[in-house]
Amino acid sequence: MNPSMSIAATSVMVLSIAVGSAFAQIPPSTAGSVDPALIEDLVAANRILSQQGVLDHSGHVSIRHPANPNRYLMARSLSPALVTAEDIMEFDLDSNPVDQRGRRLALERFIHGETYKVRQDVNAVIHSHSPSVIPFSVTSVPLRPIILGAAFLWTGVPVFETRNAGVPAADMLIRNRDLGKALANSLGDKRVALLRGHGNVVVGSNVQNAVRRAVDTETNARLLIIAIGLGGGPINYISAEEGAARDRDPGIPARVWELWKRKALGN
Amino acid sequence: MNPSMSIAATSVMVLSIAVGSAFAQIPPSTAGSVDPALIEDLVAANRILSQQGVLDHSGHVSIRHPANPNRYLMARSLSPALVTAEDIMEFDLDSNPVDQRGRRLALERFIHGETYKVRQDVNAVIHSHSPSVIPFSVTSVPLRPIILGAAFLWTGVPVFETRNAGVPAADMLIRNRDLGKALANSLGDKRVALLRGHGNVVVGSNVQNAVRRAVDTETNARLLIIAIGLGGGPINYISAEEGAARDRDPGIPARVWELWKRKALGN
Amino acid sequence: MNPSMSIAATSVMVLSIAVGSAFAQIPPSTAGSVDPALIEDLVAANRILSQQGVLDHSGHVSIRHPANPNRYLMARSLSPALVTAEDIMEFDLDSNPVDQRGRRLALERFIHGETYKVRQDVNAVIHSHSPSVIPFSVTSVPLRPIILGAAFLWTGVPVFETRNAGVPAADMLIRNRDLGKALANSLGDKRVALLRGHGNVVVGSNVQNAVRRAVDTETNARLLIIAIGLGGGPINYISAEEGAARDRDPGIPARVWELWKRKALGN
Amino acid sequence: MNPSMSIAATSVMVLSIAVGSAFAQIPPSTAGSVDPALIEDLVAANRILSQQGVLDHSGHVSIRHPANPNRYLMARSLSPALVTAEDIMEFDLDSNPVDQRGRRLALERFIHGETYKVRQDVNAVIHSHSPSVIPFSVTSVPLRPIILGAAFLWTGVPVFETRNAGVPAADMLIRNRDLGKALANSLGDKRVALLRGHGNVVVGSNVQNAVRRAVDTETNARLLIIAIGLGGGPINYISAEEGAARDRDPGIPARVWELWKRKALGN
Repeated sequence: MNPSMSIAATSVMVLSIAVGSAFAQIPPSTAGSVDPALIEDLVAANRILSQQGVLDHSGHVSIRHPANPNRYLMARSLSPALVTAEDIMEFDLDSNPVDQRGRRLALERFIHGETYKVRQDVNAVIHSHSPSVIPFSVTSVPLRPIILGAAFLWTGVPVFETRNAGVPAADMLIRNRDLGKALANSLGDKRVALLRGHGNVVVGSNVQNAVRRAVDTETNARLLIIAIGLGGGPINYISAEEGAARDRDPGIPARVWELWKRKALGN
Repeated sequence: MNPSMSIAATSVMVLSIAVGSAFAQIPPSTAGSVDPALIEDLVAANRILSQQGVLDHSGHVSIRHPANPNRYLMARSLSPALVTAEDIMEFDLDSNPVDQRGRRLALERFIHGETYKVRQDVNAVIHSHSPSVIPFSVTSVPLRPIILGAAFLWTGVPVFETRNAGVPAADMLIRNRDLGKALANSLGDKRVALLRGHGNVVVGSNVQNAVRRAVDTETNARLLIIAIGLGGGPINYISAEEGAARDRDPGIPARVWELWKRKALGN
Repeated sequence: MNPSMSIAATSVMVLSIAVGSAFAQIPPSTAGSVDPALIEDLVAANRILSQQGVLDHSGHVSIRHPANPNRYLMARSLSPALVTAEDIMEFDLDSNPVDQRGRRLALERFIHGETYKVRQDVNAVIHSHSPSVIPFSVTSVPLRPIILGAAFLWTGVPVFETRNAGVPAADMLIRNRDLGKALANSLGDKRVALLRGHGNVVVGSNVQNAVRRAVDTETNARLLIIAIGLGGGPINYISAEEGAARDRDPGIPARVWELWKRKALGN
Repeated sequence: MNPSMSIAATSVMVLSIAVGSAFAQIPPSTAGSVDPALIEDLVAANRILSQQGVLDHSGHVSIRHPANPNRYLMARSLSPALVTAEDIMEFDLDSNPVDQRGRRLALERFIHGETYKVRQDVNAVIHSHSPSVIPFSVTSVPLRPIILGAAFLWTGVPVFETRNAGVPAADMLIRNRDLGKALANSLGDKRVALLRGHGNVVVGSNVQNAVRRAVDTETNARLLIIAIGLGGGPINYISAEEGAARDRDPGIPARVWELWKRKALGN
């Protein structure tokens, strides 16, 4: 950062003090240590989503801090398949690190912080390059649920278009809080939003729930592509009634988690 | 079914009419222990179908009890890839466990019990989320056989639609005996029925036969999707004559089973 | 086999003596032992084609006996992934085993014997269920070469239809010499013929050449399916001139064989 | 290129005019030894591209010699998955080996030498049979970027057609300097050119950059095929503005390289 840019950045920070946010140079305080079992699940989520083909060399998974809703936990900038407990960092909701110690931060961490700000019901956020959703993000064909496991998509899947975000976005990346906020607005009260030509954001009430949703979204997209390709007239989508019923009784996620975690952590 | 067992089954029916569901607390009697080799094959079936991509984290395989046609054997609620001999439980045809011991039951076990009730020729039942059959379940394109291995589909593949089942079905799952019975009626005398947006049920005279059918149904669906996509006019399906000939001389399933079981059990 | 059927079979054999073939009860003589390196390559071919997804649980690879053009070598009935040197048997061109010793014979071995009879240039034959060629066998879309590696397909790929074979064929399998001969006639002087709804037969001057052709045929089929699906007008196929040029200078198969064999045999 | 090297190169040109090809027997001089870490990266590139499905049994990766822009480094003719540091050879830009020692040369090495001649900005060249780009090479559908990672394709992807190369090309292979030069002209100032029915050439400022581009080109092609297949009207491609922005800020390739290299070299 050259000196003049540094001054500009500081001005923004000063301004943000006036409206209630933290002073960037002073790192935010920690919400305290976290149950290692929860960290293990977060690590497992990174590994599982890599094994399931939802995360590639990039993308990230976060959880809200259980002791303070204004903090979240996420790995440093690292390929998800390589994440260990030691790589997990703590951030405030402006996505400032509590204890950076020279570690590189995920560029698009604002996806997480801004989503936690507006979605009190969400305790886990995934950003992925889930391959089969990409075609739906660059065409006019909506991603809608056909398989039971993805019934939660019945509320709709918005496509976030950086060109229409209302804030500058040179290259489609969510590089700052403004873009993160615009994306969170696009997501609204939904479970999944697509990022055009880029991937998706998936949210859940906990990390198991979000991981399951991310995998089932990829599977549903893959099978819907095939169903459309069959050319057999209108697709028989899952109805709003079926989706709502499934929301009320979402099954037993523990069984899937047991299998995937065992495979991912190799024990 | 031998005569005395037939009488016993009738008695249970009469009793259940008289007392409704109040006597569910009295577990059904066991049909006795089973040859460990048969249990090993049932375990292998779970592993094979997971390796072959027919079963995902869910789904189940059952066999009819060799000593009593009114009992069947199936794993507790568990991902099929993790099933071992210790996880196999015994059920009556109303899908009540003989000896639950606190184990969680597969929610959709009624698929199995209700099928065994009406299909005397069937000794193995598979319920899967076989991915390539799903597109056929949400479009008007029928799943018909093109490959020799799936010639048994020549008798037709019905699609079970929970919305038209004649019984309440909030979310597409086969949650009770009524839905299981409706599905078994939809299956009729066929080998495979699809469940809309969900998967399929595959039956066979024994577990090797059912496993082979489940794998070949997935393969046939995958290749038929491609053949239709080629857009080269009418598909040259397997004829009724060819299907019937194959039924009379279905080949040597032992060779395939030998390969798959070795891979699945790692020995 | 019951007694009356045995008599009927013997009658056929007697008849075949009259027209010049061998007396079945007397096994044909052996052409002698074979260089173990050649057998190792034949075993490797089975493993390679399994690893490359060309052979599934079935299918077979044969080579002509180097010391006698009227004998060929092929595994007993066994999944190709499990074949070892001990499983290799010797056959005459009527597909009678030299030394059966109770081993089960591949049902469709006549594909091999009848092809060797009419194709003096061929020293290796593969029969596979190569998945991506199946769609071309059940539609009117011809399998033609687009990739350099499959340029050898420029001479055309016939589709053998058992219904039009001129001999009885209840279920699409090549169960006898008559069907094997009809298939060999369909193949003619080509390198590959498809079997409708079933797979293909691939021939080569040696086993390395045939394996390479089988893999490249599968790859070409897979990519041609995609190219056709793109809907971008006529496909730019490999021309007859290019195909003929490639025939004259087919490259260095040893490099590929080295890689595949190392992977397949794990050394 | 520093001034003295430029003079040396000119001298070689003058000499070669005077003597025709008669002096080919005198091997070019070496540019000296190379940092083993760079060779390790070149080896890793071969392995990574094999693991990622971009390179099959053939194809090659080269880097420009760091001490002399008129030399490049590439493996002897060998399947990329088997390449080790001992297999790396040095070539001049006419693709003559500095020290052949009986090793077989990659037939199409002229792709590399001729590209380095005309592209001063390029320090790594990949030639692959990247499967998903092939369909774009045999149809009229252009390969354009839809995913962020492949934004660099915004400058266009030419298709090189050997039939129109202006020099003899019997079988689509780049068998000599003339064909290499024609291909380099087709590539022009782009990052990727397709070879009809054959594969592509991908260039980069260093080997990490070129590898990343080769992988992302394959992924983009695969997803674009699906997006077109969805039939949902015009594709929302990455714009020139977005592509140019991404060129100015191409992200952190080190993170991906770390993951891929670890997987490829198993450490």
